[in-house]
Amino acid sequence: MPGPVACDVLVVGFGCAGATAAIEAAEAGAEVVVLERASAPGGSSALSGGEIYLGGGTPVQEACGFRDSPAAMLAFLTAALGPHADAEKLRHYCEGSVEHFDWLVAHGVTFKPSLYDAPTWMPATDDGLMWLGENSWPFTDVADPAPRGHRGPVPYYAGKVLMDALVAAAAAAGVVTHTDTRATELVVEDGVVVGVRARRFGDDVEYRASRGVVLTTGGFVDNEQMLSEHAPALLGRGKVSDGLDDGSGIAMALEVGAATRRMHAHETALTYLPALAVRGLVVNGLGQRFVNEDTYPGIVSHRAVEAQPPPYWVVVDETAFEEVPERERWGVRPTHAAEDLDELGAELGMPDGALSATVAAYNRDAERGEDTWFHKDPRWLRPLRAPYAAIDVAAGFHPGDRDSGASGDGVAGFTLGGLHTTPDGEVLTWAGRPIPGLYAAGRSTSGIHGDGYISGTSLGDGTFFGRRAGRAAAGASR
Amino acid sequence: MPGPVACDVLVVGFGCAGATAAIEAAEAGAEVVVLERASAPGGSSALSGGEIYLGGGTPVQEACGFRDSPAAMLAFLTAALGPHADAEKLRHYCEGSVEHFDWLVAHGVTFKPSLYDAPTWMPATDDGLMWLGENSWPFTDVADPAPRGHRGPVPYYAGKVLMDALVAAAAAAGVVTHTDTRATELVVEDGVVVGVRARRFGDDVEYRASRGVVLTTGGFVDNEQMLSEHAPALLGRGKVSDGLDDGSGIAMALEVGAATRRMHAHETALTYLPALAVRGLVVNGLGQRFVNEDTYPGIVSHRAVEAQPPPYWVVVDETAFEEVPERERWGVRPTHAAEDLDELGAELGMPDGALSATVAAYNRDAERGEDTWFHKDPRWLRPLRAPYAAIDVAAGFHPGDRDSGASGDGVAGFTLGGLHTTPDGEVLTWAGRPIPGLYAAGRSTSGIHGDGYISGTSLGDGTFFGRRAGRAAAGASR
Repeated sequence: MPGPVACDVLVVGFGCAGATAAIEAAEAGAEVVVLERASAPGGSSALSGGEIYLGGGTPVQEACGFRDSPAAMLAFLTAALGPHADAEKLRHYCEGSVEHFDWLVAHGVTFKPSLYDAPTWMPATDDGLMWLGENSWPFTDVADPAPRGHRGPVPYYAGKVLMDALVAAAAAAGVVTHTDTRATELVVEDGVVVGVRARRFGDDVEYRASRGVVLTTGGFVDNEQMLSEHAPALLGRGKVSDGLDDGSGIAMALEVGAATRRMHAHETALTYLPALAVRGLVVNGLGQRFVNEDTYPGIVSHRAVEAQPPPYWVVVDETAFEEVPERERWGVRPTHAAEDLDELGAELGMPDGALSATVAAYNRDAERGEDTWFHKDPRWLRPLRAPYAAIDVAAGFHPGDRDSGASGDGVAGFTLGGLHTTPDGEVLTWAGRPIPGLYAAGRSTSGIHGDGYISGTSLGDGTFFGRRAGRAAAGASR
Repeated sequence: MPGPVACDVLVVGFGCAGATAAIEAAEAGAEVVVLERASAPGGSSALSGGEIYLGGGTPVQEACGFRDSPAAMLAFLTAALGPHADAEKLRHYCEGSVEHFDWLVAHGVTFKPSLYDAPTWMPATDDGLMWLGENSWPFTDVADPAPRGHRGPVPYYAGKVLMDALVAAAAAAGVVTHTDTRATELVVEDGVVVGVRARRFGDDVEYRASRGVVLTTGGFVDNEQMLSEHAPALLGRGKVSDGLDDGSGIAMALEVGAATRRMHAHETALTYLPALAVRGLVVNGLGQRFVNEDTYPGIVSHRAVEAQPPPYWVVVDETAFEEVPERERWGVRPTHAAEDLDELGAELGMPDGALSATVAAYNRDAERGEDTWFHKDPRWLRPLRAPYAAIDVAAGFHPGDRDSGASGDGVAGFTLGGLHTTPDGEVLTWAGRPIPGLYAAGRSTSGIHGDGYISGTSLGDGTFFGRRAGRAAAGASR
């Protein structure tokens, strides 16, 4: 075994949290080494949609004509990430959001100052701003709506351009990266974490960090054993990950006495097409409507998968289908069609009269311009007329020619629970004491989330608290 | 500090799991001491409904005319305690159930061989056998139905008579009990758990166990901090407990490297009256039906609270109300009444026409004797006729003049997650290795449950795996 590699701050995992931790630590004067298991940096962040949840009055928001405030952002996220979102982390996150925007831009991240103005998983455009449910009920009762999804100037998946910028910024800050290097164990001396043992091209290598180790190893959706023990709702579901989110950092930290928090929490994505759904209805296997179709697609997904009898259907009429531009249909075709709703309902295996009763109630509301059931924005209300079509959401879709990652039932997700940390990334023991020398951020930790999720809050939480962990590890914020 | 108290097996907590662990250890020849924080044994078990889930062909089942098998019991529990119930523990539990029945009876527990044949939380009779959803859809598609809820010969809460019998059996077996004694810390020497430190009437006392320590300290529903970190769904909800389920045993074990499992899992009880609901409809705040009203009340509760927009209503007509005998109404009165369903729906704040559409669909099905929506047993199907009444389930009830423990929204619960153990109660580390000398059972552990729950499976799991842990700690099963 070669002699140990020495540095000031060792970062384990080069996704968005690892990148920002490394940059901040390096800019605070620390010698920083980042270990990455894969052959190149990026992690699950680089494969993601690339939205970062930012607000409180960013230049992009202002350029698009929206006023926002940290208080409105906090009120929305408290509701949307709840119940029981983390109040202290959220407060930091919202109060520091404009500064975080500026920091990202200063480090090469770009956002085009234009709005994509319809519900979607990912715009098929290069617009830099998008709604993530802020303008939908019940959130419109909670805070003045402003769009806060910030994303890079490319169609569909924008995670790659985000990570390209952060990887370049890390290199520019003098961060050293060791790829193909898998940390296997934390090294503890006299109760202080002083480094890690790792495997690199078949060799055992020890890394020593004089100031601190930052775990940014991602969640555990790729570890079926951990899912079974802590987040069984994701067992057998599709994985939103790079395939390496196996909880290795969480496991290493547990071995040295770290505590975890809200390990059951998870994101759920159903492969339904918001552009179609918003123009019609989303119904459960009994033909019942259960959500306003104009809210953040992850909320529709979570409500369906956690609570409603499957299968799930998007029901539209011909006008609604034709209204959606080809490039925003993502290849989705109706799986069933009929002139008559009773016939369509029967084809979908629903109880007699169920679907027609649901559509009749919807149409009555649409005619008077008020959704009395779920308060969908009147902008999207229009009575449906024959011929009707239904789309089985489990049929899936492939935006931008990429696999959605969903399982056979159209469901995919990732984990939100993890190590219990302070807002500065200090990893806590079960008794609530920081473990000296050990920090963590990103999906290896429990972040701002309660039982809810909104796109952009994972990259947002990862980059925001990654920075704080990096600074804390470098000793800059003490 | 006085000298340590010495024994072979030390049991911490005198609920049902502690009682059976102590009895088995004592009968295996060990000197056994049980510590109990309260001034008398019993714990939350003594305050419970007292059902034990037993089957596979018990004498009580046979006397009531039911054939059952371990395979049918396993199939039902796998479905009802899932998704993702613990397959290995369940297999032991079902295969050993008749033997467990015999053991309980041999230790003074009594069951009257008669069936209470209607959905209820707790019979107002002394019947010893009750249904817990086995004869309701979808479980009727999964296994031949047999009732498996076994309970003592008293109306309503039967936990006290169960615990009285087990406490007497423990005393008869030579078990020594120290009440008013709160364990505070595990004593570990050379990696082996050898005892506990405890507080007793203001003194620090050390207990030494030469063979093993068994933690049977209960769950953590009374610990808001732990709920926030692991089971936020129960935050602010009513507590089904004796007030001492603060997770102390889980916390002590975590401090010595124990792993936990499925900490989010929980039981949910809504204070609705099954006897009324089964004769009518349970609907959500939008007037939508979402479950067959004849299933186990805990399933109705869980479905409602976890998934449906509140408030929740039981809707009946006058005939249904009058049909329920006074003593089974538990003091419940309609909170709203009307001659017309549109009027009633409006009074309940539902969308126009929602309730009348739901009842119309229900009545159509009732007339032809088939619930095409949720497959309620035709026995309970009858078209509802004016005048109609609605009962706000949050109004609560007080069976047998006891507080239901529910919070203001009519919801109460307890935790099902806890220490990760083998079927013999060995407590595992995060790496999956047993911690020498440490055992656990009951609600301080993660038992047979996935994300579902059925009455009787907590006392059932506690007594069954308590016995195994007691035997293992005494060295009898090695």
